[in-house]
Amino acid sequence: MTRAREHFDGADFPIDSFDVDFREQLAALVRRRRDVRRFRPDPVPEAILEEALRLAHLAPSVGFSQPWRFLLVEDEAKRAAAMASFRRANAAALEQTAPEDRALYARLKLEGLREAPVQMAVFCDEETHTGRGLGARTMPETRAYSTVCAIHTLWLALRAHGVGLGWVSILEPEEIARICAVPEGWRFVAWLCIGWPQEARAETPELERLGWERRLPLEKLCRRI
Amino acid sequence: MTRAREHFDGADFPIDSFDVDFREQLAALVRRRRDVRRFRPDPVPEAILEEALRLAHLAPSVGFSQPWRFLLVEDEAKRAAAMASFRRANAAALEQTAPEDRALYARLKLEGLREAPVQMAVFCDEETHTGRGLGARTMPETRAYSTVCAIHTLWLALRAHGVGLGWVSILEPEEIARICAVPEGWRFVAWLCIGWPQEARAETPELERLGWERRLPLEKLCRRI
Repeated sequence: MTRAREHFDGADFPIDSFDVDFREQLAALVRRRRDVRRFRPDPVPEAILEEALRLAHLAPSVGFSQPWRFLLVEDEAKRAAAMASFRRANAAALEQTAPEDRALYARLKLEGLREAPVQMAVFCDEETHTGRGLGARTMPETRAYSTVCAIHTLWLALRAHGVGLGWVSILEPEEIARICAVPEGWRFVAWLCIGWPQEARAETPELERLGWERRLPLEKLCRRI
Repeated sequence: MTRAREHFDGADFPIDSFDVDFREQLAALVRRRRDVRRFRPDPVPEAILEEALRLAHLAPSVGFSQPWRFLLVEDEAKRAAAMASFRRANAAALEQTAPEDRALYARLKLEGLREAPVQMAVFCDEETHTGRGLGARTMPETRAYSTVCAIHTLWLALRAHGVGLGWVSILEPEEIARICAVPEGWRFVAWLCIGWPQEARAETPELERLGWERRLPLEKLCRRI
């Protein structure tokens, strides 16, 4: 914030924008954020994790409901149970994959559950009274969306430190809720693997480099109506 | 990226992190992002909008499915129909609000649908074949979550230019899908109001300043298990 410049656009009040140097680096951050699945065992300093969580907590939330709940999973038995859940879900996914895609699917490394020094289960408290339900009556799913905004903020904040994050979704949500012994009204949103990456990060997603999928042209995803 | 420094942490390979100056500005960006509901009529330059959309398109997506679909709503009849949907949903929400909260609720300005020069309906293509379903079998909601990551990226990218965004969720999702005439498998995620804000942005959410809700202590939302 100290470096944010106040610009005047010729009108009678300031537009508090950031300078072009910052915007270029922000674009680089977004381009070089990756879903990391290969971690070094080195610990992540608590200060970095805490700083990133503090930023995540400033994410937008519907009606200021702040429904994100972060569980740092340190217990080895819980981690092993999550890994077992991944194995079951992934075996089922492989079976449901088109026969011609199976060989490539089986070669993909889709998570770093064994190696990541920090593991975090993120839930959304669907029954929170914080925010008094504002904005979420016709679209209660916006609470989970708020939680996703917090995760994405965490991801970018860690990436700015060089720390990697991988989002594991090939899991059984009810089993993860059971493992974490969360209250009834909490929805499982993401299992995050966090740590120092083994490799410098490319600008191309691994699924693209390995030929699983290509970047779509933005023009195909935008329309004026 | 030109400014990203390569650091060595004493180990035998580089950790591509960003410098402390950038990280401070990133924190400021997150702190000063607001949900904007009061817009000036001035147009937003196409170049800014396009740059922000290009960054949003680099958001993480489950299985690289890129399920986000951006509809720039320019048609006045469609905008008016969305506003009518808001009015109905908001009247119902007011009725469901606790009697003691109603006076404050009624005074809140919750959207900028009338003023925002740019309006965008964002959908998630739940039936996309892109990414071949990878990662979304046990948690199909991760496609909508990916779309939220794109929206959040757009929000930050616009904010870095000083452009404001407000996410309207007090709407009838099926009615919005009808207004936008989207394919069957598209899920409505967000209606975004975009434009230059009328006021410099505070670090405190308006819902906090007006006494609707307070920031929770982060410590209450994090736990080690």
